[in-house]
Amino acid sequence: MDSCETHIHEECGVFGIYAANPFHVGDTVYYGLYALQHRGQESCGITVSNNGRFTTHKDLGLVSEVFTPERLASLGEGTMAVGHVRYGTTGNSGRENAQPIVVSHFTGNLATVHNGNLTNAAELRRELEGRGSIFHTTSDTEIISYVLTQERLETYTAEDAVLRAMNRLRGAYSLILMLEDKLIAVKDKNGFRPLCYGRNRHGDYIIASESCALSSVSAELIRELEPGEVVVFDRDGVHSIKDNCGKAPEAMCIFEYIYFSRPDSLIYGNSIHHARLRAGRFLAKDYPVDADIVIGVPDSGTDGAIGYSQESGIPYDIGLIKNKYIGRTFISPGQKSRETGVRIKLNAVRETVEGKRVVLVDDSIVRSTTIARTVAILREAGATQVHVRITAPPFLNPCYYGVDIDSRENLIACKYSVPEICNLIGADTLGYLGIEHLPELPGDSGRTYCTACFTGDYKTRIPEETKRDMFEESV
Amino acid sequence: MDSCETHIHEECGVFGIYAANPFHVGDTVYYGLYALQHRGQESCGITVSNNGRFTTHKDLGLVSEVFTPERLASLGEGTMAVGHVRYGTTGNSGRENAQPIVVSHFTGNLATVHNGNLTNAAELRRELEGRGSIFHTTSDTEIISYVLTQERLETYTAEDAVLRAMNRLRGAYSLILMLEDKLIAVKDKNGFRPLCYGRNRHGDYIIASESCALSSVSAELIRELEPGEVVVFDRDGVHSIKDNCGKAPEAMCIFEYIYFSRPDSLIYGNSIHHARLRAGRFLAKDYPVDADIVIGVPDSGTDGAIGYSQESGIPYDIGLIKNKYIGRTFISPGQKSRETGVRIKLNAVRETVEGKRVVLVDDSIVRSTTIARTVAILREAGATQVHVRITAPPFLNPCYYGVDIDSRENLIACKYSVPEICNLIGADTLGYLGIEHLPELPGDSGRTYCTACFTGDYKTRIPEETKRDMFEESV
Amino acid sequence: MDSCETHIHEECGVFGIYAANPFHVGDTVYYGLYALQHRGQESCGITVSNNGRFTTHKDLGLVSEVFTPERLASLGEGTMAVGHVRYGTTGNSGRENAQPIVVSHFTGNLATVHNGNLTNAAELRRELEGRGSIFHTTSDTEIISYVLTQERLETYTAEDAVLRAMNRLRGAYSLILMLEDKLIAVKDKNGFRPLCYGRNRHGDYIIASESCALSSVSAELIRELEPGEVVVFDRDGVHSIKDNCGKAPEAMCIFEYIYFSRPDSLIYGNSIHHARLRAGRFLAKDYPVDADIVIGVPDSGTDGAIGYSQESGIPYDIGLIKNKYIGRTFISPGQKSRETGVRIKLNAVRETVEGKRVVLVDDSIVRSTTIARTVAILREAGATQVHVRITAPPFLNPCYYGVDIDSRENLIACKYSVPEICNLIGADTLGYLGIEHLPELPGDSGRTYCTACFTGDYKTRIPEETKRDMFEESV
Amino acid sequence: MDSCETHIHEECGVFGIYAANPFHVGDTVYYGLYALQHRGQESCGITVSNNGRFTTHKDLGLVSEVFTPERLASLGEGTMAVGHVRYGTTGNSGRENAQPIVVSHFTGNLATVHNGNLTNAAELRRELEGRGSIFHTTSDTEIISYVLTQERLETYTAEDAVLRAMNRLRGAYSLILMLEDKLIAVKDKNGFRPLCYGRNRHGDYIIASESCALSSVSAELIRELEPGEVVVFDRDGVHSIKDNCGKAPEAMCIFEYIYFSRPDSLIYGNSIHHARLRAGRFLAKDYPVDADIVIGVPDSGTDGAIGYSQESGIPYDIGLIKNKYIGRTFISPGQKSRETGVRIKLNAVRETVEGKRVVLVDDSIVRSTTIARTVAILREAGATQVHVRITAPPFLNPCYYGVDIDSRENLIACKYSVPEICNLIGADTLGYLGIEHLPELPGDSGRTYCTACFTGDYKTRIPEETKRDMFEESV
Repeated sequence: MDSCETHIHEECGVFGIYAANPFHVGDTVYYGLYALQHRGQESCGITVSNNGRFTTHKDLGLVSEVFTPERLASLGEGTMAVGHVRYGTTGNSGRENAQPIVVSHFTGNLATVHNGNLTNAAELRRELEGRGSIFHTTSDTEIISYVLTQERLETYTAEDAVLRAMNRLRGAYSLILMLEDKLIAVKDKNGFRPLCYGRNRHGDYIIASESCALSSVSAELIRELEPGEVVVFDRDGVHSIKDNCGKAPEAMCIFEYIYFSRPDSLIYGNSIHHARLRAGRFLAKDYPVDADIVIGVPDSGTDGAIGYSQESGIPYDIGLIKNKYIGRTFISPGQKSRETGVRIKLNAVRETVEGKRVVLVDDSIVRSTTIARTVAILREAGATQVHVRITAPPFLNPCYYGVDIDSRENLIACKYSVPEICNLIGADTLGYLGIEHLPELPGDSGRTYCTACFTGDYKTRIPEETKRDMFEESV
Repeated sequence: MDSCETHIHEECGVFGIYAANPFHVGDTVYYGLYALQHRGQESCGITVSNNGRFTTHKDLGLVSEVFTPERLASLGEGTMAVGHVRYGTTGNSGRENAQPIVVSHFTGNLATVHNGNLTNAAELRRELEGRGSIFHTTSDTEIISYVLTQERLETYTAEDAVLRAMNRLRGAYSLILMLEDKLIAVKDKNGFRPLCYGRNRHGDYIIASESCALSSVSAELIRELEPGEVVVFDRDGVHSIKDNCGKAPEAMCIFEYIYFSRPDSLIYGNSIHHARLRAGRFLAKDYPVDADIVIGVPDSGTDGAIGYSQESGIPYDIGLIKNKYIGRTFISPGQKSRETGVRIKLNAVRETVEGKRVVLVDDSIVRSTTIARTVAILREAGATQVHVRITAPPFLNPCYYGVDIDSRENLIACKYSVPEICNLIGADTLGYLGIEHLPELPGDSGRTYCTACFTGDYKTRIPEETKRDMFEESV
Repeated sequence: MDSCETHIHEECGVFGIYAANPFHVGDTVYYGLYALQHRGQESCGITVSNNGRFTTHKDLGLVSEVFTPERLASLGEGTMAVGHVRYGTTGNSGRENAQPIVVSHFTGNLATVHNGNLTNAAELRRELEGRGSIFHTTSDTEIISYVLTQERLETYTAEDAVLRAMNRLRGAYSLILMLEDKLIAVKDKNGFRPLCYGRNRHGDYIIASESCALSSVSAELIRELEPGEVVVFDRDGVHSIKDNCGKAPEAMCIFEYIYFSRPDSLIYGNSIHHARLRAGRFLAKDYPVDADIVIGVPDSGTDGAIGYSQESGIPYDIGLIKNKYIGRTFISPGQKSRETGVRIKLNAVRETVEGKRVVLVDDSIVRSTTIARTVAILREAGATQVHVRITAPPFLNPCYYGVDIDSRENLIACKYSVPEICNLIGADTLGYLGIEHLPELPGDSGRTYCTACFTGDYKTRIPEETKRDMFEESV
Repeated sequence: MDSCETHIHEECGVFGIYAANPFHVGDTVYYGLYALQHRGQESCGITVSNNGRFTTHKDLGLVSEVFTPERLASLGEGTMAVGHVRYGTTGNSGRENAQPIVVSHFTGNLATVHNGNLTNAAELRRELEGRGSIFHTTSDTEIISYVLTQERLETYTAEDAVLRAMNRLRGAYSLILMLEDKLIAVKDKNGFRPLCYGRNRHGDYIIASESCALSSVSAELIRELEPGEVVVFDRDGVHSIKDNCGKAPEAMCIFEYIYFSRPDSLIYGNSIHHARLRAGRFLAKDYPVDADIVIGVPDSGTDGAIGYSQESGIPYDIGLIKNKYIGRTFISPGQKSRETGVRIKLNAVRETVEGKRVVLVDDSIVRSTTIARTVAILREAGATQVHVRITAPPFLNPCYYGVDIDSRENLIACKYSVPEICNLIGADTLGYLGIEHLPELPGDSGRTYCTACFTGDYKTRIPEETKRDMFEESV
């Protein structure tokens, strides 16, 4: 799947550290955010706490662009820090919406990083504004900060405030809250988005959206948070509060397995890489074909292609090369250009595909333009047949939990049948992963997953106004 | 192979277009250089000719950084253009050494782009300075410009000047020369570096270091230039001058197949991807092992790993994930950091390797630090055995033809035997590609290759002063 | 007075336009802010309203740095806009504190620009936080936005909300509020800071801190707002609300006449340039001296020097040249430098001062370092006598109304007598403007002025905590 | 005179230091170039010599933009350095033409900075190219480097090479040459451009285009170089070579006194400020008028206005305020703008001019647009009469010696008589400085000046091709 063209985006990654001793904790967050960069490329930020004094830097851009050595050093030493990477809609408000959101209040400073999407954001905002609250941003994170602060005024402990706030917040939220003397990790009651924690050999606790970020900073994964769980990191160590656990249907996003998370991450102990191999295997069983070679669309179709090859016995090979230098500042070819965009990003390995019947594996089809061009490139390079296999079912529904799927009128699967799509993209055959296989992808048992974008089966009530406004309310 | 740590660098990529009609030819060069970015990331530049009036922009940085939409548009329309990407040593002189080198002279303007390294640079420079020439840069390209200009004063045609200049220039040079009314592509008599040309459906001729750059701009490859060949592109079409062909032993760099070129490129019609598969297969035959899984170091070891898997029957899988966001501005962890660098760039897929006997394929070992850390990461992730297979022989000698191999005191193979290296890097077994297989990698017959870095068999005389000064004279 | 060394800073300039028809109103604000750049060089911003949709750009830097042609154009067309230039303390929070402060609320969007300083900021903030408000910035402007929004929830009209808010806000505030359908200009009840409005030939209304900004956009000054006045610009034209006028002692800042405002501005119809000429004349009368030449410290002492010359009959000449290229990015000479800073910024015209008895006029002395070096430069250039005349009385007290005067321990006049200072700065004689002349400077009658920084006579009650915290609460 | 509109530009400033001991000599050059910034704002550069190893940084932009603290520090320690500020024509070649021009050669490295313009540049270039020389830039400085290098091959000493080169170079050139072990200052035989040297209390020698740059780094002026003089600074101290003195008519540019040089500079011991006062006085004598006030166009008309006031007895006052923040990045109002440009740059002080008969002094009229708008602003501000006095004669001829005067078709004085111009600019009366006063401006005797731009009296032969090509050959 080509992130520039398909309009499906994970919307955030969060990272936090509670250190045993003061040091340049911002450096650790920097490397952690680096490992989470695939979860958001628009903006990023880090807040470091030095004895309750917060220093923040955040801006539009990649982690390596926003944080120069000087900027990173200027965050100083501290014992706690939180960081965030964000994908978001473009526009003037971009910089304002960068996280962490830091607010000051006499109950103490609060820095919040958030991955997810509230389904009752409009409702909460209207209620807060009615009490005189003013908003600087359009992000859910500011709403969360308000609710937490208001609850803080009513309670003895920050932990109680968090538990009460969770009863007001609906939808998806994986949060790390930095207070003056503790970090609090929070996962919503349905557990839509991943959030895990671990520890390094220095005794520092690390919290992150994905376990690959723990590995990148040499920390060992302890475990994934449970839905509704609150984990507190402070002078007394780590302790879990499960008062809000088991209060709502479990609903981890299945698309984390299919596309968002890095292959080297684990969610609830399940390997993302293995989930993708399994998806490829299911496709091989359900849509067998007499072919010479299996190739993947790099990078996201590679795992599925290997799985397809393993199951089918058809050899895996590299049939497409991706230009790894195409970044944010790349100038895409215009309409009048002599070059078509897809050749620049992807090129066929002629020797691999020439005269061959090719199975092409990708992870999803959104608008179909990219996959159609990819099929065409393979044919120009001499492929005699191209059989497309997709490691996800067709997208048919919007996501209200933090994924920016394209609008329904752009989703090809909302407008055409599978045979029609096959024809439109110029493939010989086309097979999507069957919905029945989704629960089997992670390889565990007992967990349930949110598959609403494929099935329409939402685990929470979605207010009508959220359905209308969803394009505006995303974090 | 990790380019940051191993100190082996290709030193340039060249690209040119001779268009049938004027248009924004700079755009085509932009996309072509993009496809060649792997050949040089330090600086880049484009010169466009509009009826003999040259407009140049060049600077330090990646193609996408140096050329903003405004900068690219400011090159204007034209019928010819040349471009260059360059790897080079750091320092103040960097920007000055960026190419194209454009000189003005009453015989006409000349823009030169060059890939390679002259072995008699010091000699030529001394001779030129003795006649009053002054140099602004330390690059061979300025020497070439001088020699060409001097010969131009002595001859009737530019073509004759080029042929005469070739008799004075020794070593490796693949050149594109842009004169006011023609483009001239030149390959040195030994043919050390690749250079090919093709044509698009508009009738524009494209010249490039690698055929993948032709593909990226939707041009069809016509053919690779022969050693010593001069190809002229002008109003009368394209014509080849072979007066200097067959005058020296043929010596295409074998390391272009092993590492430098992109897998989707062809050299003399031979697939780079297939050459690497073959290397993996030779390793499987020569160094068989009882293992559970074959993995490659991304991205350069992937092709070899697939070849090893195909030959050995041991399943191929993805065992290491590379962070694709690590770029020029990334802050590498310092000595005092809690994180080790390699984890940030590479992470193991624990589920793939845990409890497994792993064959790890990479393309070369220079200092051994990176491969040692990679082996360690795999062991930490639970691999029970790690068998390292390298798709090249050990590096033992310097290259005088345009490749920046590390100094001999840093080359691990100059100091230790293979069993010692195996021990140093913590592998269970270690196998390097046998020298005898090098000629077989490309898969053709009749061509001979330069393998001097592995064998010490140089195809040209190397002046003593070049041996001493090589670190300074590289382009 | 040298702004880099003397630590007296005006803290803001505001500008607004209510246009008869939509056009690129941001352009007009750009030129207006340019004219007000002397009032703040740290950050600036513009918000344009297009039918109630607000577009904002603000950042650290000068107007010409923050607004590139692309940025300015991206603000789009509109019928209203407000802008701000700001001086502020350095630090991470700088960018967040840039104005306009834009808040969204169901009662309508609100963009606020503010010049001044609240004396009850801490009190208000504590009260607001107690009701659950959270703050993103440390600026008074966010407090003002909250108070306005809360009052808006309690009243039928925005105008009533403003009048009620004014009863809660204490201290100095000249505001322009942009609502979705109107602009409202507000001056605090004491009228500490200037704020005037006018109209151009297109019928657009312009509001600005100083009349020079009206001239710069070819608008005619209509008049200065009265203390406590609220002026509303909307579809029905302009109307004034004077309910809050006459409720507090009038107290326009006298230092606006002496230093802050541009010489071509008028306040209450009084020429700033003439006020400074008058100051020079008073000095000539009160501190006559037998001298050959009168010179001013450029640029701020020039007017006073001409006044001194006019009254005394001693010829005016140019004796010091200021380097006009010294800007924000200039690297000041360090301690170990061979050069002293003041020579780089100022140089004597030797031919003017050599062998002469010189009267040197400047507008203030803060720490005395700069004036001491200036005297030394004149002596090195051959001046036989240097008689320093200052067009203000000695600074003895802090300002709580929006001027950042240095701390008392740095104010030379708090530590030494006038003869001692004369000795310290190496002058032959030293004369400060007498306090009794302050009311006469503007040249009007009936108005009263705030002279607290010289006299300690504050026109409002200053809470104890404000006295302690003033360094933190400045806008 | 407003540099943006009048198209008269000095083209360079040079600065050099020969230090007694190694230190960060680049810092001294930085401050020196700062003081010379008025001589060129397009590009700048510094080369530092550390025992003959040269480190250069140069780029487009102001001194404070090009040299960040990091960049300046990276030049390192040394005992010699040269620097340059340059005005030049815009275009792609800008950066290449930035100076110092550094060339490497076996006779030794050479860094050259140059102020002036060769009249035989085309001739020399053709001759050099005929011998095989190639040019990277279009600047005279590269020609000078070639000629020097060629002569160096023919002579025993660098000094002899310089003397011989001077016989080949025609026109204006004030040079500082940095060799590996000495600095050589050179002034052309006519002495068109200023060049002086001095010494600081550490014993470092300083060479600069203007004495104000010596003052800025606390060095004492020793003296101006004589026409044709060569001054060598090396281990043995300083020694002068006058072999080429007295070989051509002396011809210091009179416009250095009128406009280019800073008022605090001296040329041949003559004060620039005094020359301008004298110009004002001559105007008062030759064009007396019954008026109330004399004002100058800031900043360049100020000195002349004071002179006019002194002679006429009409009071001097400040009638126009210039916005000092208008810099390189300022967005000038377009045609469709509601604002006219001149108001933004200049504003009238209404209280000064209202109801007054005003004498307005400026230093030159090129196209007349700016002065016409300035007159209009004064009338709008209530001036009853405006009498324009210009401290230079009308421009009628091109300059071949390094000044970029507008083309003849744009020079208003080439197309209209003085009464016609008076009418065009809306003045009541108009008086230009009489040509007969030019020799009297500097206040010395015995020196002769180049006044060719006013009189057409060129002191050297101008080749026909130079007359044609002058727009291309400027430094």
